[in-house]
Amino acid sequence: MTYQAAPKPMLDRVRIPADLRNFSQGQLEQLASELRQETIEAVSITGGHLGASLGVIELTVAVHAVFDTPDDRLIWDVGHQAYPHKILTGRRDRIRTLRQGGGLSGFTRRSESEYDPFGAAHSSTSISAGLGMAVGRDLKGDGNHVIAVIGDGAMSAGMAYEAMNNAGAMKSKLIVILNDNDMSIAPPVGAMSAYLSRLFSSRSYVNLRQLAAQVTKRLPAPMERAARRAEEYARGLLTGGTLFEELGFYYVGPIDGHNLDHLLPVMRHIRDSDRTGPWLLHVVTKKGKGYTPAEESADKYHGVSKFNVVTGEQTKAPPGPPTYTKVFAESLIAEAEADPRVVAVTAAMPAGTGLDAFAKRFPDRCFDVGIAEQHAVTFAAGLATEGFKPFVAIYSTFLQRAYDQVVHDVAIQNLPVRLAMDRAGLVGADGATHAGSFDIAYLGCLPNMVLMAAADEAELSHMVATAAAHDGGPIALRYPRGEGTGVAREARGSVLPIGKGRVLREGSSIAILSYGTRLAEAMKAADALAARGFSTTVADARFAKPLDTDLVRNLARNHAVMLTIEEGSIGGFGSFVMHDLAHAGLLDGATKFRPLTLPDRYIDHDKPEKQHDQAGMTARHMVAAALGALGVDDTAEAAQPSRA
Amino acid sequence: MTYQAAPKPMLDRVRIPADLRNFSQGQLEQLASELRQETIEAVSITGGHLGASLGVIELTVAVHAVFDTPDDRLIWDVGHQAYPHKILTGRRDRIRTLRQGGGLSGFTRRSESEYDPFGAAHSSTSISAGLGMAVGRDLKGDGNHVIAVIGDGAMSAGMAYEAMNNAGAMKSKLIVILNDNDMSIAPPVGAMSAYLSRLFSSRSYVNLRQLAAQVTKRLPAPMERAARRAEEYARGLLTGGTLFEELGFYYVGPIDGHNLDHLLPVMRHIRDSDRTGPWLLHVVTKKGKGYTPAEESADKYHGVSKFNVVTGEQTKAPPGPPTYTKVFAESLIAEAEADPRVVAVTAAMPAGTGLDAFAKRFPDRCFDVGIAEQHAVTFAAGLATEGFKPFVAIYSTFLQRAYDQVVHDVAIQNLPVRLAMDRAGLVGADGATHAGSFDIAYLGCLPNMVLMAAADEAELSHMVATAAAHDGGPIALRYPRGEGTGVAREARGSVLPIGKGRVLREGSSIAILSYGTRLAEAMKAADALAARGFSTTVADARFAKPLDTDLVRNLARNHAVMLTIEEGSIGGFGSFVMHDLAHAGLLDGATKFRPLTLPDRYIDHDKPEKQHDQAGMTARHMVAAALGALGVDDTAEAAQPSRA
Repeated sequence: MTYQAAPKPMLDRVRIPADLRNFSQGQLEQLASELRQETIEAVSITGGHLGASLGVIELTVAVHAVFDTPDDRLIWDVGHQAYPHKILTGRRDRIRTLRQGGGLSGFTRRSESEYDPFGAAHSSTSISAGLGMAVGRDLKGDGNHVIAVIGDGAMSAGMAYEAMNNAGAMKSKLIVILNDNDMSIAPPVGAMSAYLSRLFSSRSYVNLRQLAAQVTKRLPAPMERAARRAEEYARGLLTGGTLFEELGFYYVGPIDGHNLDHLLPVMRHIRDSDRTGPWLLHVVTKKGKGYTPAEESADKYHGVSKFNVVTGEQTKAPPGPPTYTKVFAESLIAEAEADPRVVAVTAAMPAGTGLDAFAKRFPDRCFDVGIAEQHAVTFAAGLATEGFKPFVAIYSTFLQRAYDQVVHDVAIQNLPVRLAMDRAGLVGADGATHAGSFDIAYLGCLPNMVLMAAADEAELSHMVATAAAHDGGPIALRYPRGEGTGVAREARGSVLPIGKGRVLREGSSIAILSYGTRLAEAMKAADALAARGFSTTVADARFAKPLDTDLVRNLARNHAVMLTIEEGSIGGFGSFVMHDLAHAGLLDGATKFRPLTLPDRYIDHDKPEKQHDQAGMTARHMVAAALGALGVDDTAEAAQPSRA
Repeated sequence: MTYQAAPKPMLDRVRIPADLRNFSQGQLEQLASELRQETIEAVSITGGHLGASLGVIELTVAVHAVFDTPDDRLIWDVGHQAYPHKILTGRRDRIRTLRQGGGLSGFTRRSESEYDPFGAAHSSTSISAGLGMAVGRDLKGDGNHVIAVIGDGAMSAGMAYEAMNNAGAMKSKLIVILNDNDMSIAPPVGAMSAYLSRLFSSRSYVNLRQLAAQVTKRLPAPMERAARRAEEYARGLLTGGTLFEELGFYYVGPIDGHNLDHLLPVMRHIRDSDRTGPWLLHVVTKKGKGYTPAEESADKYHGVSKFNVVTGEQTKAPPGPPTYTKVFAESLIAEAEADPRVVAVTAAMPAGTGLDAFAKRFPDRCFDVGIAEQHAVTFAAGLATEGFKPFVAIYSTFLQRAYDQVVHDVAIQNLPVRLAMDRAGLVGADGATHAGSFDIAYLGCLPNMVLMAAADEAELSHMVATAAAHDGGPIALRYPRGEGTGVAREARGSVLPIGKGRVLREGSSIAILSYGTRLAEAMKAADALAARGFSTTVADARFAKPLDTDLVRNLARNHAVMLTIEEGSIGGFGSFVMHDLAHAGLLDGATKFRPLTLPDRYIDHDKPEKQHDQAGMTARHMVAAALGALGVDDTAEAAQPSRA
């Protein structure tokens, strides 16, 4: 079935939000309908976060109609729901380049538009950033509004609470729109989510008259405390917003987030109110709204491939090797079958980390704590003190949220928490915010930590087994996004000797020591070097910590050139190797050492192979670095991007 | 006035908590009185966190009397209030070694006692750890209790909320005791704090009959929802605990935390209740309780030096140079006088960071956001987007709490947030949990980040000026705990050229490149080397990023031996220097390079000079490393602890 794009006369009139501010409500409704269609058509070509964007079509139209963006600051939490926002803010002509190399980012981004005052991609930052903007406005004496739109899932993060706690005690006017769609990436968990459900399900939407009464209400300033408390609780009973009121917010809602008839007047009331302090507007929306295949899908089309607009059928990747995520999950299940002490923790990413499969097999031993990485790690530390073997399955980039917990609760106490880091290295279309670039550096500096990186999916299986067996302290393993190499695996991995690498190919003049999945490129580089007459050793370090010092020193002693390669930043594996060699006196002599790392800049979203090329992570770059060290090839200095 | 220690007959009978479980309530009251006296006497000798410990004397006695520690797990949040706990749990004979080298830690610590099931020092971890223990207990089918004691200040941290949000949705019985003393380190801030004050001030303590009714109440399982909600709100009105109730906790309180007559029966009720899920017992205490000098002090003797028990007078340090903290504050005030865009943010440490002085001068431009490091950094990022020059003044170790915010909200967006990191390096009596060991590594790997370290307090002044002037992106500066060197300073610092170091002493055979305050030791090392006939260059890098590659490469080219020295972990400054030299081909030849860093183990609390000696950070170690590289001295290899 081919699809004929629908005409969009109203949308065609909107180049920037100012163009829609004189539209009638009927015209805005028409605009919303066309905007929904445009979003569906665009994402059918690019893939992306369709469900979240479809849920906020009317909200997007309403905010831009009521508020004076970009002078009024509009912050989208996470930013993956901002496709319709991008269409309305001067980026419609590029919307079909979403998440493509050189195209629009899949998230909000300051460098992309003045309508994106704060970039995002990780969750729960919007209230903090918005409060900073609101306080800044007040210091400057300006009169603009600041609006943060945040999902209910993001409300489980401590960062959002910290911001509310601070905002609730301040006098700056800040408008927080709680976009309650009861579905972030995974089904909602946690007490806050249950609370929001109770708010909503206990009664129908506030009607217009009630809303008007709510938002225009003024409290006389010097009011007797007991009376005010009684009044607050009475309002709690009526509107259910007591929790937010107790945190100092003025709560309004819940209202239907797909009904402009409600959204527009309420937002206008809030805009025009001279009440200082923070507002919370509770809006209920439906993820995937208005597109039947999305509404009917279990994950509401959270992240989709390209798809057929008529049927909703997504383009399937050709069958290939299993993803690292899947292999991790299977390996962990195999360990858990053998040892009842193995338990798993995820911070709201059961599908992304593969723990959904684990949870199906071991429902009582899998814990989804919500978007709450700090808690996830220390909760796991608590489990470890009781003799369990907790695996925290988490993306490398999200573990950054729990860094102090790893240092203070896990590493200093030497507790055997297992950190299984998915999405290590470059990640493709999600870009720099989701890249797992820093974990080798930020974990490798911690005493007591053991660090592993899998070179392929069979190695991953072994490393899961090794982590399960390692009870002497914390241990972390990293593996990339995407598919494995197709190598054969056993049903269950074998326990590796801690701190020992392996040699895959023996040579005599050049040594390449790889940490992680760049091993395949290292093998290719060895072939290319051999073709040019240079005998090349390739080794897989397996461990960045403890380092296999025998292997490292022997490679340095017996080769004229030694490279390290890792898909991580400076300060990681290559640094550890150099420290060891320097203190062993093995950098004093003739060995030419070159550490290849990710460059000192953020790599934009693109196809992974292009990102690897931009980052200097390919066989070609290794060949150039080796030849350059030997003085054979002039182009070598250019191979590793310089750090300035 | 000399002080005669009072006799302590009841305390003398308590070696471990089991010894007090058959005491009558009158005997427990006597024990509490003696325990208070013992705590005062001990801290008068050692210095330490007196106020917090005095506030929980009765609570400590009550918990150990009612619960079966150590089988029942008792977790003290932060752990600095655990001195009386230590006295009752087998450590009385060592309590006068608190915070001394080789002595007891000033915090709870697993390796110190089985009565410390979870170590701490940073705030707000206890509910997460406790929930892990409670869930572990349920998986094992055990019947022990888990009790977390957390202060009201710690409740502003997102981590505590994440844990409550998770606990509130689970069925594990967990007892959280909220120790509401309305004063953590600084006066309380935030909406939660205001909420707790309202709970307490709106009415007197719950009386015993009400309490009994509260804690023994059972809700019929299949109750009509509307009725339950009405009942919940009614209870909210009565007890004020609605916020915690909404988060799924069963709230009891507030009760008088110094009254065993209330504490004991309520705790027994909670212990014996078969209600699953989490409890919140709200206890109101007074910091410094029972010791007049502490009660009357503004900071309630939060952290004290040795003092005279009779007069309360603290031993003053002999007059010396100003602390780095003080110089930072003065420098920042000077910048703020000159530029109205300079603003400051602290996460509940106004005195510790020196921002109390800034707040006095610029009350509208200083923001204490509570114990909320994540929010602090992104709030500052929001201010930066509006053209302000925010300084986040924070301890290096606490910035770990905001790592992802630094990466995702500051560095990726290249926003000019200034990170002023106090307590960089080893910190003395607070030990490993408070050491600022990792910031060079975890910040240095981030693209866009500029990193500086001050060699003395005049340099600190320059770096504050440099940070204020640097609007091109994020910039961080580090400086240590304690006093400066006494060097002369201008009233306002000068802006340094970004990425340029300085040479302090020119030599010809050995080069020492220092980053930070080890510079003084480097100068001593140069003297010692000169005395042995080795001409030594000493340089101060000032910047770890961008690196002064001209300086670095010239040092390598022109010296037989080159050392780097930094008070930080592997993966930091020395690694960046080696990367540059390796790619420039300058490690290929005859230069013997040795990077000196903190060793790969945690350094326990001790006097700073002893810590530096243990860590290999002194002139002696630099001399040994240089001579060892030259093959002059056999002892050199031992100078830098090896990383295994």
